Amino acid sequence: MYTYDYLLNFSKSVFMKMGCNEEDALTATLVFLAAELRGLPSHGMLRIKDYYQLWKSDRINTKPTIRIVHESPSTAVVDGDNAIGMVASVFSMNVAIEKAKKSGTGWVSTRNSNHFGMGAYYIMMALQHNMIGICMTNANPLVAPPHATKPLLGTNPIAVAIPADKQPPFIADFSTTAISRGKLVVAAKKGEKVAHGYVQDKFGNPSDDPEIIEKGGAMLPLGGDLAHGSHKGYCVGAIVDIFSAVLSGANFGPFVPPSVAFLPVLKEKVGKGTGHFFGAMRIDAFQPADEFKAGMDLWIETFRNADHAEGKPGVMIPGDMERIKETEIRKSGINVIPAVAKELKEIADNLGVEFEIN
Amino acid sequence: MYTYDYLLNFSKSVFMKMGCNEEDALTATLVFLAAELRGLPSHGMLRIKDYYQLWKSDRINTKPTIRIVHESPSTAVVDGDNAIGMVASVFSMNVAIEKAKKSGTGWVSTRNSNHFGMGAYYIMMALQHNMIGICMTNANPLVAPPHATKPLLGTNPIAVAIPADKQPPFIADFSTTAISRGKLVVAAKKGEKVAHGYVQDKFGNPSDDPEIIEKGGAMLPLGGDLAHGSHKGYCVGAIVDIFSAVLSGANFGPFVPPSVAFLPVLKEKVGKGTGHFFGAMRIDAFQPADEFKAGMDLWIETFRNADHAEGKPGVMIPGDMERIKETEIRKSGINVIPAVAKELKEIADNLGVEFEIN
Repeated sequence: MYTYDYLLNFSKSVFMKMGCNEEDALTATLVFLAAELRGLPSHGMLRIKDYYQLWKSDRINTKPTIRIVHESPSTAVVDGDNAIGMVASVFSMNVAIEKAKKSGTGWVSTRNSNHFGMGAYYIMMALQHNMIGICMTNANPLVAPPHATKPLLGTNPIAVAIPADKQPPFIADFSTTAISRGKLVVAAKKGEKVAHGYVQDKFGNPSDDPEIIEKGGAMLPLGGDLAHGSHKGYCVGAIVDIFSAVLSGANFGPFVPPSVAFLPVLKEKVGKGTGHFFGAMRIDAFQPADEFKAGMDLWIETFRNADHAEGKPGVMIPGDMERIKETEIRKSGINVIPAVAKELKEIADNLGVEFEIN
Repeated sequence: MYTYDYLLNFSKSVFMKMGCNEEDALTATLVFLAAELRGLPSHGMLRIKDYYQLWKSDRINTKPTIRIVHESPSTAVVDGDNAIGMVASVFSMNVAIEKAKKSGTGWVSTRNSNHFGMGAYYIMMALQHNMIGICMTNANPLVAPPHATKPLLGTNPIAVAIPADKQPPFIADFSTTAISRGKLVVAAKKGEKVAHGYVQDKFGNPSDDPEIIEKGGAMLPLGGDLAHGSHKGYCVGAIVDIFSAVLSGANFGPFVPPSVAFLPVLKEKVGKGTGHFFGAMRIDAFQPADEFKAGMDLWIETFRNADHAEGKPGVMIPGDMERIKETEIRKSGINVIPAVAKELKEIADNLGVEFEIN
């Protein structure tokens, strides 16, 4: 177990050794630690190694000049200059928020970025301004649309945060696939098969093999199969891809670069880096903020208190589960699994930074 | 078979007899006929009866004063004055488009409306302005979120239209449920059971009974069950509900009024009428329009030409299927099934309008 502050100082030092200025190092660290607190270690300390290796192979820019390259009163395209994804994303979300202050809403499509970690971080930035926050990102191809035999889309998540008054905010953050990549990895480690509707083989046939991606297979869009609406999951993933990449001039679909250094740089490019899309909507651009927030309280209470199946928890509001986790983890400290702690120790030693395995 | 013009004149006359001015009657008619052309008869002539009966029971306003009640440079809330949904929606989408002309994007949340027919109509209005069109609507409750035993959300569709250059536009229009209500009706009529993941019984248990909704059951969100991501389908449906209703002050979730007169008016209200949400984004608010459109051509060609499973059609682009249908139906004429034609004849006779069953 580690304290929040210990990991904060450690991660900040690592990013600074990689050439980031203090502000950028803090930004990247805050996003990773927010993921740890919300019980999403897959988007936390684990990712330091990915960025370290990308930096070692000269595949990211830790001294970027991030800038707006095109804009209107309510929109902008940001070029991330191949920055760490979290740094380009906080910049972009701040642009969206500033646009929303003046024009009611702000919408930013970002190119030339990298893996941005946990989307929930950026949407929550909007809440303190009484705004709804929205973000999405494309990602390296893992998902086959209906009838396709090769991955053409990433897991392309969407996140939306909506402020309430007495109730905690509504915070949805979900990939547009039937399941997460992580669940496949866990099933593979346990030697288990996976359910119908998660993956297909390289011919496009249904598969129950959690390691099928390594064998030329693909994950399936939300819905799982056409009879259960996988064409709708494909639509959502496609919209995320187009808003993130075609609007900004990033690489789309099968051309999105890998977020890890052990995968080779793709030969073919159709744009610059990875793409994201950010939105901020001022709630008082629609109605007085206190009325909207009272309405959200009522919405949340209606759903939370609805009749539910016997022996099951009640209806959850998006964000409930992560908030419960955060309360626990803030008390217990942050658990870094031994394999990750070992990796962090090696990185620390290479960079001349302190890190103790505990 | 009917010609487009015959049904246009008939439907316009019906709406005018119900008190609409010529412009509003034409608007409602154009949306219905666009659905017929796209092969969606469930959103076409079939719906005239619903509106006729709502009008007979004095539940809609055919002489509405639709107005903006709140606005910012890029946003507005529109009060539909209990208008026919199509009339309130065309008004609202035009507001979004005008906002986008000035501010780059326009976003309108609409309250006090009714069933708006086919969402694809409104998003396609944006295309001729070189804009991306977005719309969503809530609908009367049919869908149970995970663990709930009662319907709390409608099928809450989302539609997005994105212009291309040489390629036809990307036009996605989909409900946020595993399947459509229509498929349940068809299965029931055939006496067939339905697949796992479509519906649940009144206790929240999985069911294969297509008539389970009439017995207190519910439809399931996209994903079908938690193991296949139904919490994500719930998130999407919830976001549609909040953007359409909490932002505008319409009825949300279980309080959305029925779109048919044979269901009673709900006793409890938390807002005004049904809610929609419309968006328009000028593509040149992000990059030069011709560059964006060339990018969309490349996106569409990449996906359309991707490797596909043997014996299966290639990867479809959202909107492909409806465009093929439209070409066929423009040639063949519009088929109105005998049961619907009979209903239309009755309505015509009551209103003193010409209609021939053929």
